[in-house]
Amino acid sequence: MSQHPPIDILVSEVGPRDGLQSIDPIMSLAAKCAWIDAEFAAGVREIEVGSFVPAKLLPQLADTAAIVAHARSHAGLTVAVLVPNAKGAAAAIAAGAHKLTLPLSASETHSLKNLRRTQAQVLDEVRDIAAMVKALPPGERPHFEGSVSTAFGCTLEGVVTTAKVVELAEALMAAGVDEVGLSDTTGYANPAQVRDLVRAVHAAIGATHLTGLHLHNTRGLGLANVMAGLDVGITTFDSSLGGLGGCPFAPGASGNIVTEDLVFMLEAMGLDTGIDLERLLAVRDILRGALPTEPLYGFTPDAGLPLGFMPRVQPPR
Amino acid sequence: MSQHPPIDILVSEVGPRDGLQSIDPIMSLAAKCAWIDAEFAAGVREIEVGSFVPAKLLPQLADTAAIVAHARSHAGLTVAVLVPNAKGAAAAIAAGAHKLTLPLSASETHSLKNLRRTQAQVLDEVRDIAAMVKALPPGERPHFEGSVSTAFGCTLEGVVTTAKVVELAEALMAAGVDEVGLSDTTGYANPAQVRDLVRAVHAAIGATHLTGLHLHNTRGLGLANVMAGLDVGITTFDSSLGGLGGCPFAPGASGNIVTEDLVFMLEAMGLDTGIDLERLLAVRDILRGALPTEPLYGFTPDAGLPLGFMPRVQPPR
Repeated sequence: MSQHPPIDILVSEVGPRDGLQSIDPIMSLAAKCAWIDAEFAAGVREIEVGSFVPAKLLPQLADTAAIVAHARSHAGLTVAVLVPNAKGAAAAIAAGAHKLTLPLSASETHSLKNLRRTQAQVLDEVRDIAAMVKALPPGERPHFEGSVSTAFGCTLEGVVTTAKVVELAEALMAAGVDEVGLSDTTGYANPAQVRDLVRAVHAAIGATHLTGLHLHNTRGLGLANVMAGLDVGITTFDSSLGGLGGCPFAPGASGNIVTEDLVFMLEAMGLDTGIDLERLLAVRDILRGALPTEPLYGFTPDAGLPLGFMPRVQPPR
Repeated sequence: MSQHPPIDILVSEVGPRDGLQSIDPIMSLAAKCAWIDAEFAAGVREIEVGSFVPAKLLPQLADTAAIVAHARSHAGLTVAVLVPNAKGAAAAIAAGAHKLTLPLSASETHSLKNLRRTQAQVLDEVRDIAAMVKALPPGERPHFEGSVSTAFGCTLEGVVTTAKVVELAEALMAAGVDEVGLSDTTGYANPAQVRDLVRAVHAAIGATHLTGLHLHNTRGLGLANVMAGLDVGITTFDSSLGGLGGCPFAPGASGNIVTEDLVFMLEAMGLDTGIDLERLLAVRDILRGALPTEPLYGFTPDAGLPLGFMPRVQPPR
């Protein structure tokens, strides 16, 4: 691929982690690598390739170390992984991941259920990981993000206050993360809330320390929430190809934002994602082949690109 | 229903016209009236109840006059209809419709195919209708809107220029409409385009003469485009309950924005629509009963309302 100018918006593909972790059929290592290769070839610059959780808890992601090793062969690709704790972070660092994301739930109930730890215990893990990262030579340190999950509301506790999210964002920064993210784990967010919460966190920890959002499309508001994020300076959005994994309690509703629709919206708006939309749409064939029983979501793939639509990424001559 | 304070955003239900005209099974007059009654009871203030086109072209909407007569019984409901020409407008006026919307395609090719008339011929019809309306006593004049269809692009011609839409908006005003609307007939619109086009038309004819958008969700951008519309002062959005009618060339993709998701987004943002979301969701049962073979769309109905979600419309005591 020829040299691309700096992009406007980073679309971070999380399907190989967030999509796969929600489905039963195990995807082969070869298929996962083919998926990652094809998205990289389409211009995707950051992919969350897996999670360093115990294999017995999540057999689907047991091969994450091997995927990290493979994905690192793509120059220019940020290889991201989820880590639930310091043990997972050590494994991620050993594997050579470029970016570690640790979730800290804004809901204590959800934290206990999801990570089996209180928020205070999770923050202890964050401190251990930060120390581990800082002990590495500067050139080998992964980027360390703390992501506030259930930041827009919790299916167990209901409303999550802005004050709680700001408090946890500050606590994450104090514990040593490089950056904070906000996750709409439950698909509760609305655009006004996205703007208000991002502004509040920016005011508390600085805009450069919150640049990414992880939004879901559970109630159909995913792309509207992206618009709200753009309004307040967010430059990284997570999404999943084909909305893989769906939403367990909402049949027919995708969980993660669909990468294809997100990229179509951004490119149509004139925002450069660096991604070739035609090539991205073709990557769905890999998912269809490897996971024939899983439904794929997305409106743009069904409807096709508008007549006269000019992709920003020109095919190589 | 108790007195409601002025609403922030008018959600205009177009399912009985735009939804039904796309499907084959004929809905009975009784079911159509029950649907309209239930939406009115949920707080919907404007419903496009049908279209005055020749019955042989669109048998589904042949009973529009009877529906108008019934819908007029609801005090406070704006009874809107589509009219393709002066003959249809005369019938709509005779039936007692409160609002007439005439589509003028921004694409000459689409205009010939859809209305069998050139843009100039459609504008002649607009002048005739405006004269007809002005000849009525002031208290009996329906509101007359000219809606620029395919305003964001055409499946036959491709790109539609801003200059063309502005030209037609000015021509519609000069021909005597009270207001201009913009329709994303093809689902081509993106949020940047929505903002730019609305601003350009506002600059040309004044913001008070363009207050409504008719958006589709063909490529999943419907609610993101609503956000863009809100940004530039749009206060009326068309939508269809259950996304009825779907999108003929995109299986699984809704055509119109889904009313339930639109109302959820606006109310969650703190914008008052006057609509009771729980009661609105219950109206789907009428569609299911009357049109058992038609798929219904929408994310919010499947996912349910968030835990702790506070509807703005309190149930009557």
